[in-house]
Amino acid sequence: MQELYIIKIGGNIIDDAASTDAFLKRFASLPFHKILVHGGGKVATQMASRLNIPTTMIEGRRITDQPMLEVVTMVYGGLVNKTLVAKLQANDCNAIGLTGADGACIVAKKREVANIDYGFAGDITAVNDKLLTSLLTQDLVPVIAPLTFDKQGTLLNTNADTMASFLAVALCKNFRVTLVYCFEKKGVLSDPQDDESVIDYISPEKYARLKNEGIISKGMVPKLDNAFHALHQGLEKVIICHADELNKVANSHSSHSGTVLTLEEIGG
Amino acid sequence: MQELYIIKIGGNIIDDAASTDAFLKRFASLPFHKILVHGGGKVATQMASRLNIPTTMIEGRRITDQPMLEVVTMVYGGLVNKTLVAKLQANDCNAIGLTGADGACIVAKKREVANIDYGFAGDITAVNDKLLTSLLTQDLVPVIAPLTFDKQGTLLNTNADTMASFLAVALCKNFRVTLVYCFEKKGVLSDPQDDESVIDYISPEKYARLKNEGIISKGMVPKLDNAFHALHQGLEKVIICHADELNKVANSHSSHSGTVLTLEEIGG
Repeated sequence: MQELYIIKIGGNIIDDAASTDAFLKRFASLPFHKILVHGGGKVATQMASRLNIPTTMIEGRRITDQPMLEVVTMVYGGLVNKTLVAKLQANDCNAIGLTGADGACIVAKKREVANIDYGFAGDITAVNDKLLTSLLTQDLVPVIAPLTFDKQGTLLNTNADTMASFLAVALCKNFRVTLVYCFEKKGVLSDPQDDESVIDYISPEKYARLKNEGIISKGMVPKLDNAFHALHQGLEKVIICHADELNKVANSHSSHSGTVLTLEEIGG
Repeated sequence: MQELYIIKIGGNIIDDAASTDAFLKRFASLPFHKILVHGGGKVATQMASRLNIPTTMIEGRRITDQPMLEVVTMVYGGLVNKTLVAKLQANDCNAIGLTGADGACIVAKKREVANIDYGFAGDITAVNDKLLTSLLTQDLVPVIAPLTFDKQGTLLNTNADTMASFLAVALCKNFRVTLVYCFEKKGVLSDPQDDESVIDYISPEKYARLKNEGIISKGMVPKLDNAFHALHQGLEKVIICHADELNKVANSHSSHSGTVLTLEEIGG
């Protein structure tokens, strides 16, 4: 089976043009099939503010009412996605920007209201691996915005980390998939104040312990939950690393750049 | 060769949710390969106004400076395109939204400054008929936003009528192509005050005469110029009609709905 890298790029990288350009250059040069999944929350919050639309976040998740749905549709599906695609094209990378609605590639349902009404937030129900595989084998590089849709015609705001892990799991049967979360830190840190305190490996047992001790908390929890969910469904490897270290991670399978998540107990 | 309908839908239809829904239902039911090309100028102008970005139009064409480029990227590539795609999906039409940058399907160059600086406006230089043909033969329905790109990574605002005619010409070699311009009138009118004064046929000679007499003017001129340009390059038929009459036009090849442009002299 051919190798496929699914790479999620966080909002803090996208927010800075120079970081984005440097990242895209590295991404474009990866000699594998690849998919880029992007966020864009900071840009959406800025645009909402310019439009006098209030942003409400609960536990790090955006509440998406109708005006906010229009903002994220514009910003994620348009501004961020198409800017990334055009820049990748300039790096000789044949990018094709997609939301979940395009070719029905990622279907979701509107999240049911339990304690919190997240509004137009989507929980993924299906990934169209056939279309994505067809695009990848035509040497296209899907660039995926964090939007899905329900079959009734409504777009839904969807967590990009979750999308990346669902894509990884769905494409496992056709490719050897590595899932990489790139962000602005060198990996999962044991001390948030110390950027060099990267945890090399995290197993499920270690993850439970780190969460228990409060070393892993907040925004990192859904990211790692998604990663382990993917690993439990057959994915080989998940890497969490700095966007600057993407090539290092991808060039050496034994590399210790970033944090490697694995189901095996490696000690430490 | 299989039949392909390339249908351009104007901004005044898109502006109204009920008209859009009715149109998309008709479009989705067409039993041919099809491509939808959309505008979105009115929505872009409204969004620009909400963002305090002034809109400047010269001879019906938008001046696209950097802030306006961001607006049209958001509105055309995101809000309008993805809303249409999601609604088509709800009509069992496997739509895939694209700008020219996606899969490098429509390449352009920034318009050179002569008398007027149109800013980030694109003049099309190439159409990737291979990708579009591949998508069409997978029974996908491309929904194309009026944005192209140059190979240096810059998105460019591009006239949707022109895009539709370039697509029609490029895909002529693989399909029997009919190009349809849908808008809010029943066709080209001999009297702008009389919605029933539809001109059945227009040949190049008749077009010259109608322009000369001032019967065809303003916004209709670039539309017809594009249409005749396409006809001269091998396209069989161009139809200009009301969005409500799309099925009538498509169901009967001898239909007189709307205005049919042809290179033959039919008289009248």
